[in-house]
Amino acid sequence: MNNLLVAQSGGPTTAINATLVGVLHGVRTSSKVDKVYGAKNGIEGAINDNLIDLNELIRDTDAMDTLTYTPSSALGSCRYKMKDWREDEEPYKKIIATFKKHDIKYFIYIGGNDSMDTVDKLSEYCKLNNHDIYVIGGPKTVDNDLNLTDHCPGFGSAAKYVATTISELERDISVYDIPAVTIVEIMGRNAGWLTAASALARVNGGPGPDLIYLCEKALDYDNFIQDVKDKLATKPGVLVAISEGLKDTTGAYVSDSMSSGAVDNFGHKYIAGSARALEQLVREKIGCKVRAIELNLMQRAAAHIASETDIVESVMLGQKAFSCAVNGETGKMAAIKRLSDNPYRVEFASVPVSEVANHEKVVPMEWITPEGNDVTEEMMAYLRPLIMGQVNIKYENGIPKQHKLY
Amino acid sequence: MNNLLVAQSGGPTTAINATLVGVLHGVRTSSKVDKVYGAKNGIEGAINDNLIDLNELIRDTDAMDTLTYTPSSALGSCRYKMKDWREDEEPYKKIIATFKKHDIKYFIYIGGNDSMDTVDKLSEYCKLNNHDIYVIGGPKTVDNDLNLTDHCPGFGSAAKYVATTISELERDISVYDIPAVTIVEIMGRNAGWLTAASALARVNGGPGPDLIYLCEKALDYDNFIQDVKDKLATKPGVLVAISEGLKDTTGAYVSDSMSSGAVDNFGHKYIAGSARALEQLVREKIGCKVRAIELNLMQRAAAHIASETDIVESVMLGQKAFSCAVNGETGKMAAIKRLSDNPYRVEFASVPVSEVANHEKVVPMEWITPEGNDVTEEMMAYLRPLIMGQVNIKYENGIPKQHKLY
Repeated sequence: MNNLLVAQSGGPTTAINATLVGVLHGVRTSSKVDKVYGAKNGIEGAINDNLIDLNELIRDTDAMDTLTYTPSSALGSCRYKMKDWREDEEPYKKIIATFKKHDIKYFIYIGGNDSMDTVDKLSEYCKLNNHDIYVIGGPKTVDNDLNLTDHCPGFGSAAKYVATTISELERDISVYDIPAVTIVEIMGRNAGWLTAASALARVNGGPGPDLIYLCEKALDYDNFIQDVKDKLATKPGVLVAISEGLKDTTGAYVSDSMSSGAVDNFGHKYIAGSARALEQLVREKIGCKVRAIELNLMQRAAAHIASETDIVESVMLGQKAFSCAVNGETGKMAAIKRLSDNPYRVEFASVPVSEVANHEKVVPMEWITPEGNDVTEEMMAYLRPLIMGQVNIKYENGIPKQHKLY
Repeated sequence: MNNLLVAQSGGPTTAINATLVGVLHGVRTSSKVDKVYGAKNGIEGAINDNLIDLNELIRDTDAMDTLTYTPSSALGSCRYKMKDWREDEEPYKKIIATFKKHDIKYFIYIGGNDSMDTVDKLSEYCKLNNHDIYVIGGPKTVDNDLNLTDHCPGFGSAAKYVATTISELERDISVYDIPAVTIVEIMGRNAGWLTAASALARVNGGPGPDLIYLCEKALDYDNFIQDVKDKLATKPGVLVAISEGLKDTTGAYVSDSMSSGAVDNFGHKYIAGSARALEQLVREKIGCKVRAIELNLMQRAAAHIASETDIVESVMLGQKAFSCAVNGETGKMAAIKRLSDNPYRVEFASVPVSEVANHEKVVPMEWITPEGNDVTEEMMAYLRPLIMGQVNIKYENGIPKQHKLY
């Protein structure tokens, strides 16, 4: 028996189940795999022999279709970081025991940086110990920070959510004739790709965000206040997009530096986001109406406004990961290579996962304007194709239908 | 010349432009009105003679269609509260001067409580002074708190956003196997209708929110912590929906009572929402992972997930307001009367605006469970029809197309 195990890890996205479905399509249409299982809660399911039988699912095309558009990780997730086997071999032995017990020959792990590190270590371990096991990574992250792939599954859908939401918020804040600043905090601790996607709110000629600050560039508070004042001089409602992980010129997180003195009635420190911190600053320095908005988990969970481009590519990357595994590749990640922006064309490839793991692809400084408060046309050309197309979500009783595996 | 003026007021919704379009459809298909204008920034536009010519727009059916699905108030808004004319007649004189100058015979004001107060006062003033002017209100509010109408335009779309988002968040928080509490704050200072709509995340069998607390019922902190502990005993990821305006048993806002001691580095008080306050409480009393999410302006601006039922009814209420005005009614509000839940049937009526203005329709206590942490089947039966159907949003370059009037 040659069986396949698939698992999901890291922060959920709206496209990670599409990649799972891509793997399952591979199994369904190939004679190389006998049975397919999912590991529950990522690599922990492989360590603890906690598997879900997916063999029924692959014959239920309706369920597969609904699962494609269901947000978050249907197999559950984990934040488990594998140690080097020379340091702690126990988890490796347990994984191999699970693999042997269920005749697993192929393992596909869908996730971000930490998951690619697991793929790297596990594939190395299997090679060194002559296990006939093929380990392949499927990329996923709304942060879009994985190396060697043009962009990451999940990012395009999050970007479409951000662009749509910013364009809707722009309409909302434009109605009153009094000065007001709205600061929208967007996910990204170290990579500002998703914050940059706020600029896509301008694709149809709307103003989008008036100012954009990515975490790659240190924020000078005085310049920030001056930027906001300059915009307020031209219009009453000013919309600002900032990265969660924005840092100031001392290298401290904006959120930390601004909120360190704040404690509640119990004496606990308030954990404010970067938008809350800048909200306080604007209130202090400008004194106008100001509001902080966090797009929070919605930006990675809003499957109802997923990008068709993203979902289709995510399925195809699952298929690519599958074919890499059954064709004897190991220690690789399925990746997207962009051939052209316009017309948008890509091809799928496999890349060495060792060069992906533990790297973070951040926004190049040349794609941020010299003033540090907007993105360039190069960034726009990169981003535009990724939000194209709408998914054919099925609604039931007024909300999107979902498929659950447990 | 018999001309018509229309204006929008109060907090924006995703359906307020649909009601505007309903009024314009009325004008387009009637011989009783010669020209149509919009007042910019609500009644302030009438006071200051700041009008927008809408006569081109009503011949552009494409633009009208796009405007129907464009969120927020295309004519701008205001928070202006008219004083009694015996106290300050000046604004009334200015409005009448604007009306005379532009031959305005009909005025339709789309808004919430304060706007209906304006309709009431202005229609009374016109009658007393024998002005041949007919003033009609069009309801709108995501709070759903207007008297004499079964529900309010804008509410169904906000409810669909809340239900969809809660169902997506439920998927997101379910992936990890560690105890975590997520508290979602939903709009409503005095009326918990929109928070109740979080229960619609269960319409397809999903768990939806585990606990729901509406602002109509005082929150006992000890009971709240016990409720959360009880849920954590059954599952790792607990999802709680609460109203922005939740009060504790002393009558104080939860947000005020919990955050009063918090100050930032500048000595300014932190303005925390009710979810932030309860996040701190859970951290203190239970000590598990906890996250506060505010649905913020998105819940009233997310036109991309509007309810078709809401949008269609909103257009029809605009048409109803139009026909009331041209048929000589004044001091009335167009309203929805529900005939049955299943099949859902409504009819449109006009109701005396004096009985709408300055009332707030809150959730009946019988529609909240005795434990105070959920809603009843009566509430579900009321809510279910309001989120039915999806709107045919046109996308351009990956985001919804919008139409702007200025």
